[in-house]
Amino acid sequence: MATDSALTAEQILSATEDALRRFGPAKATVVDVARTLGVSHGSVYRFFPSKAAVREAVTQRWLAQAHDDLRFIAIEPGPAAERLHRWLTTLFAAKRRKALDDPQLFATYMTLVGEASQVVDAHLAALVDQIAQILQDGIEKGEFRHTPVNATARAVFEATAHFHDPAHASGWSDPTAEDRFEALWKLVLRGLAADA
Amino acid sequence: MATDSALTAEQILSATEDALRRFGPAKATVVDVARTLGVSHGSVYRFFPSKAAVREAVTQRWLAQAHDDLRFIAIEPGPAAERLHRWLTTLFAAKRRKALDDPQLFATYMTLVGEASQVVDAHLAALVDQIAQILQDGIEKGEFRHTPVNATARAVFEATAHFHDPAHASGWSDPTAEDRFEALWKLVLRGLAADA
Repeated sequence: MATDSALTAEQILSATEDALRRFGPAKATVVDVARTLGVSHGSVYRFFPSKAAVREAVTQRWLAQAHDDLRFIAIEPGPAAERLHRWLTTLFAAKRRKALDDPQLFATYMTLVGEASQVVDAHLAALVDQIAQILQDGIEKGEFRHTPVNATARAVFEATAHFHDPAHASGWSDPTAEDRFEALWKLVLRGLAADA
Repeated sequence: MATDSALTAEQILSATEDALRRFGPAKATVVDVARTLGVSHGSVYRFFPSKAAVREAVTQRWLAQAHDDLRFIAIEPGPAAERLHRWLTTLFAAKRRKALDDPQLFATYMTLVGEASQVVDAHLAALVDQIAQILQDGIEKGEFRHTPVNATARAVFEATAHFHDPAHASGWSDPTAEDRFEALWKLVLRGLAADA
């Protein structure tokens, strides 16, 4: 229980996540969230102006979780090819874990993601920017050939969609998924590499 | 109207397609189809042992339509890179046409595709085989470097999923789709090319 004066945005987001998990995206309401926290729903609206705003914030937090690692990989020292490979496998592992460990919560979030296109677009743009950072670094080091960095980063992201876009989640438990990812990675890396 | 004795499998498939278009996948029945054709539903079952079998045959026909072109591109003479580009753009154009011209029928077929995983798997395997044919030819001509042809063909197919997999159909009307496809194509082609 939180008193009105001690209530934080973080508590509201956690309680919303709980409500979504228990009642599903169609039924979870701000009233449920307020009741769980022992506050009035007016208190929730002091932090988030609408139900949609709470759900967007929850979606944003969910998308950001497990992607903190990625930000660090993008700015680490070391060979760009190795970092890009690690970045992609980390993304794949994080998405696969979410999809396979708790399919119901994953489905719930897929519904929220469908509602919050601006939040999702910003998230995807941030991921593509991280790839662009690694590419830029690789070009400067002479590992990768010169290409328009942003367009190529987008191409790398889309080329690997099979292994991070939730639309393909049904194939992620396939025993050939790792091998297929590595074959795709070889093709992409060869496409990026500077002439030997 | 068809008399029982003149009834053909092709008529049944066309009538099923009409019924799916009118009633949707949840409601279209073999009885509707038989009524449209003026035959008993027993006559339909002489061609297809079950409702599922009719629907699979319709799905197969739909998947095969507009893909005839692809088979020819795979076996044509000419530079492999140019043919692979044409094969991919033809596939993208065919899928996009289906998705955007008649979204409701497209959605209907997505439901059927979800039911007929063996039909779909065979269809996808045939497409990957066509890519493998082009790759093999390109390797023999010295255009493409030596790689395990089947794994690389699968990688090319998956790398371009953004532009042919119905899961990504919502992005196909985006004005940047062509440019993004071309950026992805450059990455893939560079990944395939033999050392200059």
